[in-house]
Amino acid sequence: MSRETVVRVGLLGFGTIGSSVYRLIQKEHGQILEGTGVDLQVAKVLEIDPAKIPTDAPSSLFTNDFADIVDDPSIDIVVEVIGGTDAAFTFLDAALRNGKNVVTANKQLLAARGEALFNLARDERRHLRFEASVAGAIPIIRVMRESMIAAGLQTVYGIVNGTTNYILTRMYNGEGDYAEILAKAQELGYAEADPTADVGGADAAAKMAILGSIAFHSRVTLADVAFEGIQSITLDDVRYARDLGFVVKLIGAARLIDDQVSVRVFPALLPAGHPLASISGSHNAVFLQGNAIGEIMLMGPGAGGMPTATAVVSDIVSIANTKDVGFLQSCSCYRRLALYPAEEMESAFFIKMNVEDVSGVLAQIASVFGEHGVSIASMIQKGRGAEAELVLITHPTKERDFFAAIEQASGLKCCKSEPKTLRVL
Amino acid sequence: MSRETVVRVGLLGFGTIGSSVYRLIQKEHGQILEGTGVDLQVAKVLEIDPAKIPTDAPSSLFTNDFADIVDDPSIDIVVEVIGGTDAAFTFLDAALRNGKNVVTANKQLLAARGEALFNLARDERRHLRFEASVAGAIPIIRVMRESMIAAGLQTVYGIVNGTTNYILTRMYNGEGDYAEILAKAQELGYAEADPTADVGGADAAAKMAILGSIAFHSRVTLADVAFEGIQSITLDDVRYARDLGFVVKLIGAARLIDDQVSVRVFPALLPAGHPLASISGSHNAVFLQGNAIGEIMLMGPGAGGMPTATAVVSDIVSIANTKDVGFLQSCSCYRRLALYPAEEMESAFFIKMNVEDVSGVLAQIASVFGEHGVSIASMIQKGRGAEAELVLITHPTKERDFFAAIEQASGLKCCKSEPKTLRVL
Repeated sequence: MSRETVVRVGLLGFGTIGSSVYRLIQKEHGQILEGTGVDLQVAKVLEIDPAKIPTDAPSSLFTNDFADIVDDPSIDIVVEVIGGTDAAFTFLDAALRNGKNVVTANKQLLAARGEALFNLARDERRHLRFEASVAGAIPIIRVMRESMIAAGLQTVYGIVNGTTNYILTRMYNGEGDYAEILAKAQELGYAEADPTADVGGADAAAKMAILGSIAFHSRVTLADVAFEGIQSITLDDVRYARDLGFVVKLIGAARLIDDQVSVRVFPALLPAGHPLASISGSHNAVFLQGNAIGEIMLMGPGAGGMPTATAVVSDIVSIANTKDVGFLQSCSCYRRLALYPAEEMESAFFIKMNVEDVSGVLAQIASVFGEHGVSIASMIQKGRGAEAELVLITHPTKERDFFAAIEQASGLKCCKSEPKTLRVL
Repeated sequence: MSRETVVRVGLLGFGTIGSSVYRLIQKEHGQILEGTGVDLQVAKVLEIDPAKIPTDAPSSLFTNDFADIVDDPSIDIVVEVIGGTDAAFTFLDAALRNGKNVVTANKQLLAARGEALFNLARDERRHLRFEASVAGAIPIIRVMRESMIAAGLQTVYGIVNGTTNYILTRMYNGEGDYAEILAKAQELGYAEADPTADVGGADAAAKMAILGSIAFHSRVTLADVAFEGIQSITLDDVRYARDLGFVVKLIGAARLIDDQVSVRVFPALLPAGHPLASISGSHNAVFLQGNAIGEIMLMGPGAGGMPTATAVVSDIVSIANTKDVGFLQSCSCYRRLALYPAEEMESAFFIKMNVEDVSGVLAQIASVFGEHGVSIASMIQKGRGAEAELVLITHPTKERDFFAAIEQASGLKCCKSEPKTLRVL
């Protein structure tokens, strides 16, 4: 490149991601300069925990005062990797108002308070970039915002939480039940000490709110996403699903239906041949369906310091290289679509029920289902007598009708416990 | 968006892709305008075949004179989808010299004569975009150029030819031998009447030249790519591979080794669990390995009018939205790396040989291999007596040593025909 531009970065947070961003910029500085003309420099790092400050970096680089970054006119871009929705919001709000472009990896912040920040960025004519907020190194934000501009996206399915995918993969391989594998994952550092946000689905819900907003150009917040986790998935569920040719995954599903938006997160059975079924371990994947593209899938590491740092650095370089960038400077939410009513959604279901193995039990259940228009696609009965278990897969049906049928069926005398239900993709 | 920019496009060619670009712009015009502020208009179409001009488009849109496009100062962007390397080159050369930005889907042109065009685009400070030249709707060019800027890419594996993947998938499923399935694919329009460029590997080689250039920032031309096709793959090869847990795919492999570049295309055995092994039918996929990202894969439709048109339209919108775009305006080849010597490459191999089933035959062969440092990882013998077949998989070894071993082994008395060899990924 003929022209070189010095770009000075203020880094908020020096944990796993922050330190990786710093080290990646050191390592790739020459290549980025040669390839893009951007002379990338980390000017200052905000870190209040002295234990996180390494001995091999100049101590003058670090500060515990945000003012040293936001008030430094030589800093062009503020990178936020501290997490949380309070201090992070305050910092980014102040940075934008002070003329900084910002990059964030903070999905919870964007899913909860994104609109205010995006509006501010638009008003200040500054960039707000967030590739690292969803699916780590997988460049799903850029692909959806830029490459899919004419794709006519209708559906986004995501495996966007690595912890739950790791647990479900191990359960599928028969390596233990939910509690055992979660404990093992915590030991190995693949799951947090408090894993609630991951296993309960809230982490995936925040990411799907972001993906749904971009896919359909209408703001979806965390509050708009109905989510369930995997805590109640048993080894039995996974085995029965496997016997029927399915894999259980925690799926984020964002759909455009009749110009309305539905974004949900739930454990679901996928046919073993579905591209998402083969995503194993802590990998993430996003599967896009659109009128003009058919189907596209991206997969890769959904977390980790270095993979996530590549997304942050690509955002920084992109900002540095695009002085006037049209639509990328704004949020992509240029319209307001209503939420599609959950009870109108159609899904196929997996049902597991303990039944008294009496003559005609299947006929009784099928009859109740039939009254509600729910038709059965396949069935396995395990065990006999009082210990029998019935496993059913239904054809797709309105969820409202399905749950009415389940409620009625669970009142049958032959039905010995609350039926367990999971969606089938 | 507050500001609207009218962008007028001159379209060269109205075949499958050209007509799809036109129809996609008609269909998504409103969404693109709302989302990006770009008022996209197809101003003129160059098409010399009257049979291709549809009755439902204004006839004033069409011309058979390139001057009507290149000399029209109101046309901002020229889109080339006619194919070939002669007229296409002349047109794009003239368009760039006349101040137009250009978008092309022409892999053969870029792989053969890309350097001159990229240099001209740089000198004229115009964009030359080419997302549609590789892997249809899969946004691999943008992902590699922009998102992988700090990924430290080391390897690019691609399934980038849909015809061959369709044939190999059907062979794997036991639906016929090579000739039968090729004939069927031609009947269905999945293979050309003259399929040489596809089945012989030249199409994949051109695409891998482009991907290799971008991945490693050093020009790779078609002449630099050693390629083989799938014409000699038999149903037996595919079955033996399957028995050993492998899938046969036509693989493009671009690698950075000791600051040298190797780009090759060859049929190869992939372990059934490899993400690329599950890419079936006419789908394409690109698998990236890099120091900072681990592994990322993108898959989707590699051809087809509408999928390819989405890539063209995203390039148009990107040009329209980025007035000064730094590194994206230039070719990404900022250095010149040498080609890695083919004989120094290391590969594992599959070997199929007809042998006389005499006592000690395996010992004789293993001994010859051992002399050359080639070690055997697994073996199957099929049949007995004079009709026996030996199938071997080796550990990775220098290809020079491997081929020396094969030459010597084929001279053994027990070896009844030239051994068949395929690489194992």
